[in-house]
Amino acid sequence: MARSSSRKNEVVNAVIGQSGGPTAVINQSLVGAILEARRHKCIGRFYGSLHGIKGLMRDTLVDLSRENQRTLEEVADTPGAALGSVRLKPTEDDCRAALETMRRRNIGYFFYIGGNDSAEAALILERLARREKYPLHLFHIPKTIDNDLRGSDHCPGYASAARFVAQAFMGFDLDNRALPGVHINIVMGRNAGFLTAASVLGRVREDSGPHLIYTPERNLSEEQFVGDIAECVQRYGRCVVAVSEGLRDQNGHPLAERLLTEVDSFGNRQFSGSGALGDFLCESMKRGLKGVRVRADTLGYMQRSFMGVVSEVDQREARQVGTLAVRLAAQGAPNGSISILRENGTRYRARYERSPLTRVARVTREMPSSFINRAGNNITPAFEEYARPLVGKLPKPGFLRAKLVEPMEAAEAVS
Amino acid sequence: MARSSSRKNEVVNAVIGQSGGPTAVINQSLVGAILEARRHKCIGRFYGSLHGIKGLMRDTLVDLSRENQRTLEEVADTPGAALGSVRLKPTEDDCRAALETMRRRNIGYFFYIGGNDSAEAALILERLARREKYPLHLFHIPKTIDNDLRGSDHCPGYASAARFVAQAFMGFDLDNRALPGVHINIVMGRNAGFLTAASVLGRVREDSGPHLIYTPERNLSEEQFVGDIAECVQRYGRCVVAVSEGLRDQNGHPLAERLLTEVDSFGNRQFSGSGALGDFLCESMKRGLKGVRVRADTLGYMQRSFMGVVSEVDQREARQVGTLAVRLAAQGAPNGSISILRENGTRYRARYERSPLTRVARVTREMPSSFINRAGNNITPAFEEYARPLVGKLPKPGFLRAKLVEPMEAAEAVS
Repeated sequence: MARSSSRKNEVVNAVIGQSGGPTAVINQSLVGAILEARRHKCIGRFYGSLHGIKGLMRDTLVDLSRENQRTLEEVADTPGAALGSVRLKPTEDDCRAALETMRRRNIGYFFYIGGNDSAEAALILERLARREKYPLHLFHIPKTIDNDLRGSDHCPGYASAARFVAQAFMGFDLDNRALPGVHINIVMGRNAGFLTAASVLGRVREDSGPHLIYTPERNLSEEQFVGDIAECVQRYGRCVVAVSEGLRDQNGHPLAERLLTEVDSFGNRQFSGSGALGDFLCESMKRGLKGVRVRADTLGYMQRSFMGVVSEVDQREARQVGTLAVRLAAQGAPNGSISILRENGTRYRARYERSPLTRVARVTREMPSSFINRAGNNITPAFEEYARPLVGKLPKPGFLRAKLVEPMEAAEAVS
Repeated sequence: MARSSSRKNEVVNAVIGQSGGPTAVINQSLVGAILEARRHKCIGRFYGSLHGIKGLMRDTLVDLSRENQRTLEEVADTPGAALGSVRLKPTEDDCRAALETMRRRNIGYFFYIGGNDSAEAALILERLARREKYPLHLFHIPKTIDNDLRGSDHCPGYASAARFVAQAFMGFDLDNRALPGVHINIVMGRNAGFLTAASVLGRVREDSGPHLIYTPERNLSEEQFVGDIAECVQRYGRCVVAVSEGLRDQNGHPLAERLLTEVDSFGNRQFSGSGALGDFLCESMKRGLKGVRVRADTLGYMQRSFMGVVSEVDQREARQVGTLAVRLAAQGAPNGSISILRENGTRYRARYERSPLTRVARVTREMPSSFINRAGNNITPAFEEYARPLVGKLPKPGFLRAKLVEPMEAAEAVS
């Protein structure tokens, strides 16, 4: 490594990568970063690293400097990760290979869009660069539908996924009214219940589903699960249930871990891309509550990638965190991540703040306990107040007002 | 049964019910019927029968005559079945109970919104009424996301579900580009592949998924399934697959029948509301293609009830079949169903025709073989031409245009 550790007034190149699960707005952050970079003379070429840090390791980069505005706006409105993504905890050798590409390409800025695992990957790279005295401006740009980054009020990607979940549950309730029974629905969220909680936003009437909501923050025994549902069926003749994929049994063990076995390099076990948890809970219910129609759906990758459902607030904020990361880096701010906070006041307003990488990396946050009811089977109005401004105005189902006509005895028959 | 079999110039009441799986537009048909009935003096009260024919059997009716226009328009835009639905093949006793309610309520018109099973239920009722010399104007109003009614170009409810499927697969492809692997997705459709075929509408580029599409019209061996996917992974490094829930093995037996056991009163086995088929295929793939990331999603009830995705053509046509059924019945047309046909010509235009109930009841139609490729693993442009005008303009994903930058050897490093 021959470069000096200072780069004052020098033009250097930049690179950006996307990492972890895609979202509906991760490309907004990408485009925000690309466009902001064009406003800073200290940044030369702006490279995209294909499939996150893998692109740097393998020198598979694209030059984003010449993409025109129209293409970029189309990409910004597209779910998925336009540069490709990756789930990789880089080893020291991986980071060495990435630094080597940076050195050769004269790259002095690194932006990494992702969640807590991606922040950890960035941190590993930063530490090696420091040891090697390689001058590197580095910013993590937050993204996660799980909404579980520490130091943030909420995370880009969450609100759009929450909107999809809310609209899905509106439909599940309407479907279940039409053909009553027990309908169990598995929502993404490994450790935090924010996305599962968003199902409550689909509830429009007193008797609307989801009637029960289970998040990973509370343990759940099979006995309570069956009992809760039986009680609901008794009351409403039906039951729509939202269950987080990270649901824990009475001993705090995620049920999905018993059912699925694949593990990624961050040590995360596969929870999504399978109907196993839903089917397992269905069987529990059928054993526990005879004669009732029980069905399970798993919302799956639609939650993060469905084309055509997005929150406008989420789009705006995702753009903004990409913009700010590049602006701060170009201004020479210390390396870090961008956190979104919420201004006090009656109308929703976000503000942004630089966070140290160590705050965001690896560890996640759970939902505040004020968002979960005492019984651990429902979500409180405090959560709704928190989430509604993020998700935006939802479509509103209509209901007939006609009441049941008086039953008529044979004797009263009209002629 | 004391009523005469003729009702010329007499005002009698009407009843309408909804039956089978809900759709995004079944309430359009309901509202079309209610509003049209108000224009005909021969129709008195307009009752809604709760949960299909069950409402008539139990005399659980609502009076729809006084619902205001605004409520009705809100209901029309709402998925689900506003009157509640049912899956019930009525017995002779059931029909007798229904006729008894009709006699007492002075009901001379019966409208039943549903698919082929619902048409069969209507036919059973009609036959009893005829034997009992009970004068009954009866119309079946078509509805099915399966698009499998005989005598129709397409069925109300299909286009909206197809739109959901297309948007879902656009997202699946974007997600799979970002994190490559094999992604198997189960789409509704017991005997006909129309809805699964709609996944092809989500394909926007030469290399877009779904790369493989399997419908119930063709048998599929595990060997072909694994081989097709392996070939696709070889070519694209990834594979998005659309599989109909009614997928048949090489002997023509639906795979889901091996995995699920519940049966309804029409003899239909449960295919939906479970992730079993997707997980089963996932396991096949993992055995057949080692080391590849394989995931399965099941689109589930979202396909028919998601709040906020609908085809405008479907809305209009569903309204129209409800309107026409009431109009024809009021004008004294013979009992029957409404079929939607397509006018020849370059621009899409529907026309409507009365069909005899016997044509629509019970039996279903499959996809024309011109819609499926020879290998039985893909959908032809002929299908796209058929389906695009129904589904309407879809959102369009954007893609970066930047090409890979030339790899750089260490020796060429820029300073």
